[in-house]
Amino acid sequence: MSENISVLGLGLMGSALAESLLAAGHRVTVWNRSPAKAQPLVAKGATAAATPAEAVGPSDLVIVCVLDYPAVREVLDDVSLAGRVVANLTTGRPAEARETASWAAERGADYLDGGIMAVPYMIAKPGALILYSGSQAAYDRHEQALAVMAEPRYVGTDPGLAPLLDLAMLTGMYGQIAGFLEAAALVSSAKYPLTEFTSTLLVPWLNAMAAGKPAMAAAMESGDHRTEVSNLEINRVGVDNLIRTFREQGVRPDLLIPMKTILDQRVARGLGHEGLSGLVEEL
Amino acid sequence: MSENISVLGLGLMGSALAESLLAAGHRVTVWNRSPAKAQPLVAKGATAAATPAEAVGPSDLVIVCVLDYPAVREVLDDVSLAGRVVANLTTGRPAEARETASWAAERGADYLDGGIMAVPYMIAKPGALILYSGSQAAYDRHEQALAVMAEPRYVGTDPGLAPLLDLAMLTGMYGQIAGFLEAAALVSSAKYPLTEFTSTLLVPWLNAMAAGKPAMAAAMESGDHRTEVSNLEINRVGVDNLIRTFREQGVRPDLLIPMKTILDQRVARGLGHEGLSGLVEEL
Repeated sequence: MSENISVLGLGLMGSALAESLLAAGHRVTVWNRSPAKAQPLVAKGATAAATPAEAVGPSDLVIVCVLDYPAVREVLDDVSLAGRVVANLTTGRPAEARETASWAAERGADYLDGGIMAVPYMIAKPGALILYSGSQAAYDRHEQALAVMAEPRYVGTDPGLAPLLDLAMLTGMYGQIAGFLEAAALVSSAKYPLTEFTSTLLVPWLNAMAAGKPAMAAAMESGDHRTEVSNLEINRVGVDNLIRTFREQGVRPDLLIPMKTILDQRVARGLGHEGLSGLVEEL
Repeated sequence: MSENISVLGLGLMGSALAESLLAAGHRVTVWNRSPAKAQPLVAKGATAAATPAEAVGPSDLVIVCVLDYPAVREVLDDVSLAGRVVANLTTGRPAEARETASWAAERGADYLDGGIMAVPYMIAKPGALILYSGSQAAYDRHEQALAVMAEPRYVGTDPGLAPLLDLAMLTGMYGQIAGFLEAAALVSSAKYPLTEFTSTLLVPWLNAMAAGKPAMAAAMESGDHRTEVSNLEINRVGVDNLIRTFREQGVRPDLLIPMKTILDQRVARGLGHEGLSGLVEEL
């Protein structure tokens, strides 16, 4: 079913979102601070509006994707939002999402906060995911349109949840990148072919190790950190061994040091017999 | 073809290795400092030896899996090794592997160092991998027997390479674990179901992100760190945002801090336009 949808903010991401909605047959009105960015979308059937208020005019669903949350409020400040759904896909923190939800509620709007787990060129392609939190009624009403942009996943009524889970996924990614950077530096120090190591050894190993994470999560949820496979004392010796090897190879182990610190700390509490899942309690 | 093989050291790992060789029909002689650990293997067809020298007697291939490298030399000190292959599967550092290879060469033995990428219960099962480095001739002569214990992979003549690549894979794993611990702490702070988050969101995301690592490795090998997707300046803002969120949620971001430090450092050098692969040059 074709809907009237507004997209405010036409950076790389906003433009990709608008384009996917146009391709799916929706009537899309667009606005951007610098109007030139609307032109490629107008060529694909969008209507360009001169102001945010004009852009929002015909639409029940208002998608906002701008630089940051202060910009969201600035853009929407003079716009009548009563009875509309604001889907804010701007990147930000959970606290900002909660504040913006209250701000929207004061203006009579239903609010959804979104966390986009994709880069712009992945929009409308398999693998792209957008987390939504906030008004369940708003999500249910627009789920079909939202599904055009990326696989949508509603995670709860707290508007801060989508950005929080988004940031938690990025956190996991940054840990993986940190480990990869250190591994790559070590392999390079031995002049072993790095791309071959990464493709044939590291990536399959990381995928195998990722498969064990739900069991670690279950241990965290239960608080039962017993293990028969790999206790903290063994891991502490392993990480010491790693760090000594980095120094012998002339590579800085900086990104690994806090892992050593937290292992030392937990073992010093007399918990060396527990598994790695228990480390979460130090954070 | 059935071979005479010795296994010295019958901890959980050594016992699993010996058991897999017995199951494949090899004639296995075993030795352990405390003799009781040999009994379950004798029941499965192994011959127990009273001393390392007696255990090595009939075998061309001598597998050693003990506590550490000093223990390897201690165990083999009075043993005639001339003309035999010592496959040392003890966990250690590249520098120790190189020293032990020289030590074995002085005794006329061919030396292989091994890095076991598996826990004991995975031995002889799909997914278990053992890296070997050192004498290519020794590896070629015994590849079939080695393949019984786990998929074998010969990585080069430098005896330190197998432990180095083993430690590099563990480094990648510890980074992934560090990221998971922080992500789990953040998700728990919002009372979102952690096992569900891990299974349905985090693990698929980590696997998708791991798939991008060979391209990062290629950028590191070429030294060309240009990017159109996600430059260091954008990542620096993202990590600052993360750390602020951790503090707002009352979670310690300790394991992420060095990632912030290295991003700040690289951007301060005026390289904020480059991609994440360039960070390896800071290590």
